[in-house]
Amino acid sequence: MLNLPVTVDGYGAIRAHVPSRATESASRKKAARASKVLPDLDAAISACELTDGATVSFHHHLRNGDGVLNRVMDALARRGLKNLHVAATSIFPVHAPLIDHIRSGTVGRISASFISGPVGEAVSRGLVPEVVVLRTHGGRARALDTGELVVDAAFVAAPAADDLGNVSGRAGKTACGTLGYPMTDVEVARRVVAVTDSLMPYPAHPIDIPQGKVDHVVVVDRIGDPNGIASGTTKPAEDGPSLAIGAQAASVIAASGLLTEGFSFQTGAGGISLATAGAVGREMARRQITGSFCSGGITGFHVGMLNEGLFRTLMDVQCFDLDAVRSYQRDPRHLSMSAATYAAPHLGGAVVDRVDAVVLGATEIDLGFNVNVTTKAGGIVIGGSGGHADTAAGSRLAIITTRLTAGGYAKIVPEVGTLTTPGATVDVVVTDAGIAVNPGRADLQDRLKSAGLPVRRIEELLAEAAAAATRPTPPRATDRVVAVSEYRDGTVTDVVRQVEEAAP
Amino acid sequence: MLNLPVTVDGYGAIRAHVPSRATESASRKKAARASKVLPDLDAAISACELTDGATVSFHHHLRNGDGVLNRVMDALARRGLKNLHVAATSIFPVHAPLIDHIRSGTVGRISASFISGPVGEAVSRGLVPEVVVLRTHGGRARALDTGELVVDAAFVAAPAADDLGNVSGRAGKTACGTLGYPMTDVEVARRVVAVTDSLMPYPAHPIDIPQGKVDHVVVVDRIGDPNGIASGTTKPAEDGPSLAIGAQAASVIAASGLLTEGFSFQTGAGGISLATAGAVGREMARRQITGSFCSGGITGFHVGMLNEGLFRTLMDVQCFDLDAVRSYQRDPRHLSMSAATYAAPHLGGAVVDRVDAVVLGATEIDLGFNVNVTTKAGGIVIGGSGGHADTAAGSRLAIITTRLTAGGYAKIVPEVGTLTTPGATVDVVVTDAGIAVNPGRADLQDRLKSAGLPVRRIEELLAEAAAAATRPTPPRATDRVVAVSEYRDGTVTDVVRQVEEAAP
Repeated sequence: MLNLPVTVDGYGAIRAHVPSRATESASRKKAARASKVLPDLDAAISACELTDGATVSFHHHLRNGDGVLNRVMDALARRGLKNLHVAATSIFPVHAPLIDHIRSGTVGRISASFISGPVGEAVSRGLVPEVVVLRTHGGRARALDTGELVVDAAFVAAPAADDLGNVSGRAGKTACGTLGYPMTDVEVARRVVAVTDSLMPYPAHPIDIPQGKVDHVVVVDRIGDPNGIASGTTKPAEDGPSLAIGAQAASVIAASGLLTEGFSFQTGAGGISLATAGAVGREMARRQITGSFCSGGITGFHVGMLNEGLFRTLMDVQCFDLDAVRSYQRDPRHLSMSAATYAAPHLGGAVVDRVDAVVLGATEIDLGFNVNVTTKAGGIVIGGSGGHADTAAGSRLAIITTRLTAGGYAKIVPEVGTLTTPGATVDVVVTDAGIAVNPGRADLQDRLKSAGLPVRRIEELLAEAAAAATRPTPPRATDRVVAVSEYRDGTVTDVVRQVEEAAP
Repeated sequence: MLNLPVTVDGYGAIRAHVPSRATESASRKKAARASKVLPDLDAAISACELTDGATVSFHHHLRNGDGVLNRVMDALARRGLKNLHVAATSIFPVHAPLIDHIRSGTVGRISASFISGPVGEAVSRGLVPEVVVLRTHGGRARALDTGELVVDAAFVAAPAADDLGNVSGRAGKTACGTLGYPMTDVEVARRVVAVTDSLMPYPAHPIDIPQGKVDHVVVVDRIGDPNGIASGTTKPAEDGPSLAIGAQAASVIAASGLLTEGFSFQTGAGGISLATAGAVGREMARRQITGSFCSGGITGFHVGMLNEGLFRTLMDVQCFDLDAVRSYQRDPRHLSMSAATYAAPHLGGAVVDRVDAVVLGATEIDLGFNVNVTTKAGGIVIGGSGGHADTAAGSRLAIITTRLTAGGYAKIVPEVGTLTTPGATVDVVVTDAGIAVNPGRADLQDRLKSAGLPVRRIEELLAEAAAAATRPTPPRATDRVVAVSEYRDGTVTDVVRQVEEAAP
């Protein structure tokens, strides 16, 4: 019918639309409905056309309750795939079955921002054939965005999904809240598979990942244990020494000049961090100031601060407990953010770049204020940066809280066992024996001294830690490199070497 | 201090992190804050490194109240840039100043999904040097996603933004609601500029476009007139003939077998469409069924249906009036969707593919059920597909409502002046003289006849329209091609040719 020109100047060749002609097929076509649901993980693996050496990504919003990584890896193993690269955000004790997949050759490479439990120990003992790459949360987002880390299939643990792939972290029986980490993976992964135990009527909502970012949906009976979300403590410490450190850290913030209207704050979910947050909140109330946001992983304690009017918003990459999940479900001031928005260094400004004060922990800190959160004394991998290096770099005031010793080992050391977070980005160390200020922050040292805080030289704290320690810090291993610790920009802060095959 | 290996097997060369050493700079670095705010549009144009021939994109959420496109084009013209490609979602009468930019050579190309007002007339009269490309909303999203349409700078009319580029359509003095169209542009544009008249304290929220997608922020005194958002009618028709057509269209839906639990529905914002929606809503209440969603541009009328419990959710690419804006600000069941999620054909299923029934208008419809919403009688461009062809293709039941004549011209014609939406995707035409069913939908014809509806052959409606018309349908122009009408998959349904230089 149509009489179209063959080409049009400035447009080129005309590909004429060919009208559908079959009459009865019109009814059938109109009755058909696209669906992204596949019968099982095996079908999804086929659909993703995964082959030996492929990179599969996972996120850790279900933390030590996650059931998706193990299920998917089991399915990949059953297919006989080899030498896969597991690109996880974090690996927890629940992921111990990965070890068998490494032994069998299913897994040949691992990269992650945090590795704890048996897999960390296995990495340290040299079990993984290829060197493990540890990235910061922001560095991982950057690597994804720039194509340095290419994901063949991203598996999203989806608390709720519909058959066109809308994913919600706020609905379903395993609701985990925000989905900040996979939000970054799904932007670039070659294929995306939502794995859910709650297939909802279309449209699943509230939507955390929209359908256009998801290729396939697989329904399983259980994606994990919601009680596993709160796998660490998310209550303020109550013991005297921790409360004392928290109070000192809060005093540092109060004296820093940053505790003014619009103050922005990040803490971890540990007892000292939340004790600090409690003391900071009391001081904010006393000064009658309202903060702009708390960021990071969010706990019920932060939700409480929001609801008390101490902060205007929460910026949440991951809910750390079920109180936080409930808040994100209901409160529009509780905002989600992707890993990239949270911490990436290449986007002209991340949320971490707007944090006034962050309270961080440490396994070790050294005379150069360098921090180790990657390995424990003896060199076994027990973590990694996560957002540690990102927030230290971005914040105006990065506070490390630590006791002088733990488990008999000194925590202030001449040189950290693994350098995770460069000392140039760390401003203050608060211990149970006083406060040390980075020499690069003379301004801050003056403020803290004026406020009457017990400022000491880090060398003094080092000496006291050494005196209090009952076990010597083991020397660094010298064997082959088993892991590389990348900074947020992709440079390398340190390597982790294989430890001796000692008793496990 | 660090003693890193030069290379690591399986990792490659080690780029060692170089710690920041300068002592006093640590304070300065910690005090500095990234900001994406630039002093004015001129600075943003410089930052985007726009040159002659560049493609700049715009969206139309402020509709005939938009003040951003004209401001940006004026700034580009002042810079002396030439032959720019304006890739807009829709162009309205308020954008008439584009004509001077075309005349001066600042603009050499236009692509859009809808062009009305003086620019449409100028296109038809051959003013634009290069051929104009008209795409459906879904086709534009596909073209962006696949790299067929490369945007050098996307300018986002941002009702509220903060200095790191978080954009909210729900805050600020020009709040327009969802930002579905730019959500797709910002995913792929080389640079993104948020233009706002409400710079909010960080973080601006609720967030519709997150900071990581925005490169620059420019503050202007006014991005537009919020009253211009509701530039068409968004009330149900009240005149007898329109109400009669609406009632018939509702009867078609009721008889179609689709009006069951979970029903999904889309209408435009015109009087007949909303009259249809009202009648459908009454029938849903009578049958005690709850629909899954209403989609598309959303009006206060749809909000009312949500609040009456007739639908579970709204899926909103663009708020058509301020009642819809207020609903999106407050109600978590009122969901936003991007242009791609709404209508794109390449993502394995868009929202349009889940619409049960859609009610659409037409300038002309022909014996092959092909629809023209691009040109008026005589060939002047007065619109374009927008989501017309997308929803017709995706829905189970695409209903065209029309009177037999308008302005003296027949609306049922032997062959449409411009083929926008292929007849194979159109199921029913409802007129003030009866209903015609696409011969490809014999199943539907049977249902409608069984329900006692006045089903007629389209040839009969054609004859009545011809008899009622007081003016002859002008022949198609034969001059040079001024616009190409692309289908959602990039094939061409028709071309628009230059009309004679008659009196304007």
